[in-house]
Amino acid sequence: MDKRLWSDKAKSLTPYVPGEQPKHDNLCKLNTNENPFAPSPKVMDAIGAVLANDANTLRLYPEPESDELCSVLADYHGLDTSQVFVGNGSDEVLALVFASFFMKDKPLLLPDISYSFYPVYAQTFGVATKSIALDESFAINVDDYVGECGGIIFANPNAPTGRLMPIAQIRQLAQRHTDAVVVVDEAYIDYADDVSTASAISLIDEFDNIVVVQTFSKSRALAGMRVGVAFANPSLIAALMAMKNSFNSYPLDRLAQAAAIASIQDEAYFQEKRQAVIHLRQDLTAHLQQLGFEVLPSAANFVFAKPSQMPAAIIAEKLREEGVIIRHFKQARIENYLRISVGNREQNARLIEVLTQILA
Amino acid sequence: MDKRLWSDKAKSLTPYVPGEQPKHDNLCKLNTNENPFAPSPKVMDAIGAVLANDANTLRLYPEPESDELCSVLADYHGLDTSQVFVGNGSDEVLALVFASFFMKDKPLLLPDISYSFYPVYAQTFGVATKSIALDESFAINVDDYVGECGGIIFANPNAPTGRLMPIAQIRQLAQRHTDAVVVVDEAYIDYADDVSTASAISLIDEFDNIVVVQTFSKSRALAGMRVGVAFANPSLIAALMAMKNSFNSYPLDRLAQAAAIASIQDEAYFQEKRQAVIHLRQDLTAHLQQLGFEVLPSAANFVFAKPSQMPAAIIAEKLREEGVIIRHFKQARIENYLRISVGNREQNARLIEVLTQILA
Repeated sequence: MDKRLWSDKAKSLTPYVPGEQPKHDNLCKLNTNENPFAPSPKVMDAIGAVLANDANTLRLYPEPESDELCSVLADYHGLDTSQVFVGNGSDEVLALVFASFFMKDKPLLLPDISYSFYPVYAQTFGVATKSIALDESFAINVDDYVGECGGIIFANPNAPTGRLMPIAQIRQLAQRHTDAVVVVDEAYIDYADDVSTASAISLIDEFDNIVVVQTFSKSRALAGMRVGVAFANPSLIAALMAMKNSFNSYPLDRLAQAAAIASIQDEAYFQEKRQAVIHLRQDLTAHLQQLGFEVLPSAANFVFAKPSQMPAAIIAEKLREEGVIIRHFKQARIENYLRISVGNREQNARLIEVLTQILA
Repeated sequence: MDKRLWSDKAKSLTPYVPGEQPKHDNLCKLNTNENPFAPSPKVMDAIGAVLANDANTLRLYPEPESDELCSVLADYHGLDTSQVFVGNGSDEVLALVFASFFMKDKPLLLPDISYSFYPVYAQTFGVATKSIALDESFAINVDDYVGECGGIIFANPNAPTGRLMPIAQIRQLAQRHTDAVVVVDEAYIDYADDVSTASAISLIDEFDNIVVVQTFSKSRALAGMRVGVAFANPSLIAALMAMKNSFNSYPLDRLAQAAAIASIQDEAYFQEKRQAVIHLRQDLTAHLQQLGFEVLPSAANFVFAKPSQMPAAIIAEKLREEGVIIRHFKQARIENYLRISVGNREQNARLIEVLTQILA
């Protein structure tokens, strides 16, 4: 590849590699933590209504700040609209978070094992990082987050481990680092047994230095529509807004805004499917344990499991040959683990069936 | 506003201010150059088909690289798929272009009057710029683009002037600056009388340093769906891809990809509406001239017009009072001009009617 005309920045990048999105439907796809259930039927109705009532609207720019969506989200969480920001998936929100809060002369503190896009963003925005090892049970130890700190980011529940960090510890981090922004990436929080006590949204009013990032791609079953959210103090939201409007003014199209609003408005459906996934996770965990896997306690819609009979990489390969795709990370400390998305009943049964054959 | 926790970068920004997107439908909206016609009915059909055939697809991530859309665009323009890149509106594509090609130790050369987002991107990515004055007829003079050059960007047709630069001059720029990337922002190119001879896409195979940016927001009537495109040599496309995957992996949702594909596939509708807008522009120009406006020759779906009887800012204000919104830029050299989007027959008639009253 001739990189003669690339900027030094472009030359320096090692881009993120997203989980495979296979083009064929006949695979049992348990590799990117999508929701096994469809979005609320009201989402499809809302999109249909945009198209049917006034097809002309697609010709017009969307609301640049997604005002109505922000207002619906604020009401849902008991916040003010000035505490809500939305973007083109939580990946875009996280990118803007890095640029807005972490481009500092002190290092960003983050777990050695977490969402693998974080180090990529750090590179993109020239943010120095200090990687802090999870303990031997793959939990974050807040007492290790000390010293020079230009910011803190972690996923909660963490990815790919699935472990949930108690809210009291997030409070400790925010209290100890009042001059740094603490970002809690809650992509999977809705799969905690009790969301209201698990989510750091409850800390937003109290702390001016906490940003909570969430997504519509998991519990809201809208990965295909690209909607992410940040909740924070109004002054932090204003920074994200300034950064967005220095990068891309209209990140959410009209149908994505309509879909997200309709999803929030169907609470009964949301709760039903959330609980269903939690039950499926419990079943899947039990079956994997019966097959000799060590399964970390998960508050997400995936499990992180260590096989006892065969190396994880080989199992992943053999599953793939049988049309079951899961995710294996070639990374120190976790190379003998598999991250398996919780599928629907049929998908999970298929996974267990194939695993049983492989390990027989 | 308390900016204590903002990064220096965030503090330094002066964000872009998009044209107003009013929430009420009763305005005659001629301020953001949207298409006066709806998108092809096949676009609505394609979106409906995604929803109807398999509602489940919204729960799955979209193709991260929009492969099918890139392939359809490549076929349409006689290019290879490796020469095509898509993003969340041409604004996102332009942001990635700035990061990939202009973050250099030499200044970016750009016209003093052009798309007002360019200086914002330069600030976002720390790109030094050298502003080069358009000549007195608001044309770009390629002989002024000399000296140290880390890249060149301009809109063609230019915005907000509407003037088209002949392709021979773009060729000259690319030939003279072989170590810099020349970006031609063709947001409005489909409103040139002869697109095939006006577009710099015809130069992509010949020059490895030209990037052509286009959008689905104007001639494709899909501003509401956020789809932008870049065409270039494969090595430049690879840089954009690396930058995208270091920022946001999945910028186009499933419905945006389906909508854009369907739009390209309805060539008859596209040509019909393109021609209709060109005719409406000619009519609008004639009417404005009758009212004493000096109208620059436009190859876009807007006109840039200078009133003779009253300051432009006052006319814009009076139009607004009557529910007609157009765009006025408080910027040196063009403060006595108005940028007026070409509306449909009724909208243009309304504009002329109100203008006639104001100037009576």
